[in-house]
Amino acid sequence: MYQINENYNKLPGNYLFSTVAKKVDAFKAANPDASIIRLGIGDVTQPLIPAVIEALHKSVDEMASAETFRGYAPDLGYDFLRNAIAKNDYAARGCDIAADEIFVSDGAKSDSGAIQEIFSADARIAVCDPVYPVYVDSNVMAGRCGDYDAATGKWSRVIYMPTTAENAFIPDYPMETPDLIYLCFPNNPTGTTLNKDQLQGWVDYANRVGAVILFDAAYEAYITEADVPHSIYECKGARSCAIELRSFSKNAGFTGLRLGFTVVPKDLVCKGTALHSLWARRHGTRFNGAPYIVQRAGEAVYSAEGKAQIREQIANYQKNAAFIRQGLLDAGYEVFGGINSPYLWLKTPKGMSSWEFFDYLLENANVVGTPGAGFGPSGEGYFRLTAFGSFANSKEAIARIQKL
Amino acid sequence: MYQINENYNKLPGNYLFSTVAKKVDAFKAANPDASIIRLGIGDVTQPLIPAVIEALHKSVDEMASAETFRGYAPDLGYDFLRNAIAKNDYAARGCDIAADEIFVSDGAKSDSGAIQEIFSADARIAVCDPVYPVYVDSNVMAGRCGDYDAATGKWSRVIYMPTTAENAFIPDYPMETPDLIYLCFPNNPTGTTLNKDQLQGWVDYANRVGAVILFDAAYEAYITEADVPHSIYECKGARSCAIELRSFSKNAGFTGLRLGFTVVPKDLVCKGTALHSLWARRHGTRFNGAPYIVQRAGEAVYSAEGKAQIREQIANYQKNAAFIRQGLLDAGYEVFGGINSPYLWLKTPKGMSSWEFFDYLLENANVVGTPGAGFGPSGEGYFRLTAFGSFANSKEAIARIQKL
Repeated sequence: MYQINENYNKLPGNYLFSTVAKKVDAFKAANPDASIIRLGIGDVTQPLIPAVIEALHKSVDEMASAETFRGYAPDLGYDFLRNAIAKNDYAARGCDIAADEIFVSDGAKSDSGAIQEIFSADARIAVCDPVYPVYVDSNVMAGRCGDYDAATGKWSRVIYMPTTAENAFIPDYPMETPDLIYLCFPNNPTGTTLNKDQLQGWVDYANRVGAVILFDAAYEAYITEADVPHSIYECKGARSCAIELRSFSKNAGFTGLRLGFTVVPKDLVCKGTALHSLWARRHGTRFNGAPYIVQRAGEAVYSAEGKAQIREQIANYQKNAAFIRQGLLDAGYEVFGGINSPYLWLKTPKGMSSWEFFDYLLENANVVGTPGAGFGPSGEGYFRLTAFGSFANSKEAIARIQKL
Repeated sequence: MYQINENYNKLPGNYLFSTVAKKVDAFKAANPDASIIRLGIGDVTQPLIPAVIEALHKSVDEMASAETFRGYAPDLGYDFLRNAIAKNDYAARGCDIAADEIFVSDGAKSDSGAIQEIFSADARIAVCDPVYPVYVDSNVMAGRCGDYDAATGKWSRVIYMPTTAENAFIPDYPMETPDLIYLCFPNNPTGTTLNKDQLQGWVDYANRVGAVILFDAAYEAYITEADVPHSIYECKGARSCAIELRSFSKNAGFTGLRLGFTVVPKDLVCKGTALHSLWARRHGTRFNGAPYIVQRAGEAVYSAEGKAQIREQIANYQKNAAFIRQGLLDAGYEVFGGINSPYLWLKTPKGMSSWEFFDYLLENANVVGTPGAGFGPSGEGYFRLTAFGSFANSKEAIARIQKL
């Protein structure tokens, strides 16, 4: 008789955002008249920019005629998109990344779940705590995390690096040496960042101990401060120790279009095997390319009009972030993030647990956020709000919270 | 120091179609004037049907306005598409499959590579030989296949079920009991099928020995004979032993759009755990939904106009298949498939190996096919041609082959 992958049964409960959605649905069913404002899941609300819409229509028309129809995309991405990324996201920032080191995918969630596959089954992972759940859960499913301790909320083989107000959200190098280090800056969920010197320290550390940094830069478009790196390849030595994951979801509103990419520099070599060739093989065997029309949409993000339109869209979300931040501070909350990030991270008031505060906010202000504990044990006592709503909704949410 | 997944280094050479592409590129570089006809990789050539184009334009316009914009799709697929599939692909054929047993994805290649993840690391897999390489390679990467023997072209832990002219391409039940049985009918690459009684035999076998059948029905739209099942759920008892993988690539020309789905009936239960919940968890953690616009395109395939337009498109490819089949028979080749399938499977002439015949055909007829050996040891001595070209190209290819 066949057997299942027992690691799945080790996962406690549901995926965080599914649990949030279920709670909100139940509240809505019980309170059909409540006007709920969702500042929970990090989904965007502004429409796709005109340059992207135009590229989509144009490429859809290409698919309507045999002469211009495109079937299977190259597994690793169309050159027009890989070149645009190399030029705009890397060369323009002085980063030495070639177009063929860029692997186009259907999104950073897929890539951040899949990247662990190319590493050994007993690799030790280190994550910031709190953390985006996909990093840990995908490794649990692969059997790397040991056992879950419900009392501490920790996995026995995961190396946790707490990032809390106590260390100003700057993780310390871990006591045990990890093989893979997941870093996400600007951070999800805390909205905080590392400056360039601090990130350089991590690159040096990884090169020193022989670890790979899996650097999630999905939120780089929200950076406003000059000394915050947009890419890990701004740091010296990153080509030999870092893989970078990028997304079109937050910088260009592609959450419903699905597009991302992963950078695997050819200098990442383990005992003669280039990780670049492993990831290429993984893509070639288990992925069939992102849709042509979506890759054309991605290319349009880098056009002159696209860049201008995107800047305006991001500025709107940044305005929300600044407004929410100030509104929470005015209401007496302790607030982090929101300066280089669309995420606000606040301390729950009066010693409430983060799920207690979730229920309290939902019931009394009809505002949905995300409980910090859902991101890891050190997220307990914190709560995440996002700036991805409309300005009107952000304003109304703050008005309601200030009235509590 | 971190270590890689050493299973990758066990994989011999490159993914089959990458190797074919490289050979063709080299030939083209050396013979820039050659007019190459590609009947190799199973990519479609006809444009998307008008109903799909219209649905794409309409949904792109929805993404242009805040009122109708759609962000993250439900991980498991939009209800409008899951309902259309349940009604048209299952209820209409008398199969008892609920909409929430259908998981929408970015394509059958992704799903057929990922499905093994929910099973135990030591599961024994059985595959037909020859076989679509993704089934085996994805299990090699997961460490289930043991070691590769270059002399036999076989993996030590894989159970091979030869399907050749000798057994009329009907696999025998294996001597060793497998945990997972990959079946693809109409078959890729042989183009042959099982009738309903034969498939029922496999369902009964799987239920008897406690195995799961992973049934790839990507080519069901090409079935012309009445007693060939379109879905494994036409067989009694399949709900407790079979997962079905389906694609929009070949039935609706979505190779460049990326859409597929996997059916996991709730009756598939192993020691109290429903595979349905494992696959839902996998999708929720490691996938972020297929693009909204592509799911709307998929829905349009099931509209009245969509169905009529698709029927016409498939009929064109079927006409090619019949023409190529007859042309090869007239030229004295032994040919299989092409009746319920877009694939033609021929015996290589004069004892040529399948790669020798690949080179011979490329050099002397400038026709690209796929060497049978690339699909497994029992594919040696066979060669695959596809009916996905234009009729003009199919005709020209046959004219050239007949002249050899």
